Amino acid sequence: MSQNMKKLINNPADVIREALEGIALAYPELIKVHFDPYFVYRAETTRPDKVVVISGGGSGHEPLHTGFVGLGMLDAACPGEVFTSPTPDQMLEAAKMVSTGAGVLNIVKNYSGDVMNFEMATELAREEGIRIINILIDDDVAIEDSLYTQGHRGVGTAVLAEKIVGAAAEQGYDLKQLADLTRRVNLNGRSMGVALTSCTPPAKGSPLFQLGEDEIEFGVGIHGEPGRQRLPVSSADKITEMLTLAILEDKEFTRKQIEWDEKKEDWLEFEVTDHPLKKGDRVLAFVNSLGGTPLSELYIVFRKLAQICSQKEITIVRSLVGPYITSLEMQGASITLLKLDEELIQLWDAPVKTPAMRWGI
Amino acid sequence: MSQNMKKLINNPADVIREALEGIALAYPELIKVHFDPYFVYRAETTRPDKVVVISGGGSGHEPLHTGFVGLGMLDAACPGEVFTSPTPDQMLEAAKMVSTGAGVLNIVKNYSGDVMNFEMATELAREEGIRIINILIDDDVAIEDSLYTQGHRGVGTAVLAEKIVGAAAEQGYDLKQLADLTRRVNLNGRSMGVALTSCTPPAKGSPLFQLGEDEIEFGVGIHGEPGRQRLPVSSADKITEMLTLAILEDKEFTRKQIEWDEKKEDWLEFEVTDHPLKKGDRVLAFVNSLGGTPLSELYIVFRKLAQICSQKEITIVRSLVGPYITSLEMQGASITLLKLDEELIQLWDAPVKTPAMRWGI
Repeated sequence: MSQNMKKLINNPADVIREALEGIALAYPELIKVHFDPYFVYRAETTRPDKVVVISGGGSGHEPLHTGFVGLGMLDAACPGEVFTSPTPDQMLEAAKMVSTGAGVLNIVKNYSGDVMNFEMATELAREEGIRIINILIDDDVAIEDSLYTQGHRGVGTAVLAEKIVGAAAEQGYDLKQLADLTRRVNLNGRSMGVALTSCTPPAKGSPLFQLGEDEIEFGVGIHGEPGRQRLPVSSADKITEMLTLAILEDKEFTRKQIEWDEKKEDWLEFEVTDHPLKKGDRVLAFVNSLGGTPLSELYIVFRKLAQICSQKEITIVRSLVGPYITSLEMQGASITLLKLDEELIQLWDAPVKTPAMRWGI
Repeated sequence: MSQNMKKLINNPADVIREALEGIALAYPELIKVHFDPYFVYRAETTRPDKVVVISGGGSGHEPLHTGFVGLGMLDAACPGEVFTSPTPDQMLEAAKMVSTGAGVLNIVKNYSGDVMNFEMATELAREEGIRIINILIDDDVAIEDSLYTQGHRGVGTAVLAEKIVGAAAEQGYDLKQLADLTRRVNLNGRSMGVALTSCTPPAKGSPLFQLGEDEIEFGVGIHGEPGRQRLPVSSADKITEMLTLAILEDKEFTRKQIEWDEKKEDWLEFEVTDHPLKKGDRVLAFVNSLGGTPLSELYIVFRKLAQICSQKEITIVRSLVGPYITSLEMQGASITLLKLDEELIQLWDAPVKTPAMRWGI
């Protein structure tokens, strides 16, 4: 094995399959794995009147999305190769496996490959009579129009949307209500991240990008995409302040939506604007590790984030701290702030039972 | 900041205090932090007839132990500086804060500093009329009598003991029953770990130990202590097999216990032997990240572990996969196998609500 690749893996070509075999063996009561093509789905039968919620994307971000399959969250997740979109056949077969008569909602992080493949899968599923809708998550405020992405990238809000929308599906929301809810969560959420180190994808065998020993990538994407700028290493407080102020910026960010136009039988792209956070808002504060950053450092980030929110009279009423949307072993963190209301709080608090998020049950 | 220390921290001297401020801000409904001296304790009042369960140890292993304070687990946790025992005054003040009339059980990982300081704290607490017992966890089969430790080191079984014993305390077990249960969990648990990389303690500012680019430390301790041997990097399957076979070795390992002798008014040290796992046993399989290893690699380790257990006719009936007892950002993993019975399964499944482990409530 290459010197650049000290990893607990066997053949790099087998990483996805073996990791899926492992998660299936670890959580047989929660999930099942379909191997050809790859997708993870719930072990227990879904209620026939429930809208099913599916997500997917490149691997390497675990527990996202496979670790979020289970009661109160996703019905299925489609993992691609590391940092690579899953294919339309995965998405189609997953939809066919878990689909009820009530429809399918796909939560799609806004990366060009993911968007294109989910669109193709959706068209195929529609031809088979499945009611299916894609909603984009594009919450990363760092930059627009980057490597992998037209518009804003989808990051931390995807985790929160999967929990909240999954709970709503469990409570009987119909497909239209769920689509509206997902769009609202997306527009209520803003994120930004920072990388202290790179990471090494197994198939590449060398670091994804080069970062100097005293440099950080401010505004990094979860595939190591360049952010706003390279900066010298500074203190946790300074870095947290820069991330938080970028998220709290008092301007509307343009967000992208794509809907299937029934009349034109084609995809309709349009823009909406998100909602800047303001004094008096209540938020969920999510401090996420990109993989290699210890929990103690996330707490130090949370401390400064909470101080800034307090100064701005924004109240943190729920929190999530840990590695939930990662980039392999990359050191660094991201912050997501999601504006909450009573409905979103109740859905966040609702029972969930998945490999990586579990409470109330 | 030094080139060797890309961390989300401010002043290295402030890491513990700021991380504690952060955890307090993130989980105000679950925990409170006492700052002089440092300890974390439950936010809600403990039932007056409940034995309280306390643990503690060096920081740098988060979420252990501070992330395990809450309903169904610990009543308090005492964090030392990074990789350094907490002091007796922390343990004494924590015991006084959360103590009921029903007694205090300290779960102590077997490191010389921790053992000595918990003994001093226990003597002081006894002088103040508190019924208090220390039980050692010494489950690491890698080596005996190492740096930091006389006998076997305490590692992954500490996490499982805190969950199981915490649940039993919630269900009304008395102090003697809890002490017996903790000893049983310890003797039922065996662990071993491997490091792929070192880690950098903030106050040191340079790597804890040196590991060649193609080397791993087989049997490493959670403070980077040397293990059984340095080996060249090999496959996840080979490394997992070596760890698992070391744990499954068919010989009794000598374990240490220390009890307060009421008559002699002194500490009594004695040895017991643990229980090698055998065909037909049911186990909890715990695959732990040392901090910097991604979840996908833990699943690959779990896969091989499950295959070996299946071959040996040992049945995995519960699992835990993730970073629960870490060494800052160290890459590597540890495996713990805990023999279960109906009582231990029921206690493992019981509701728990802490920052890092939460279900059923």
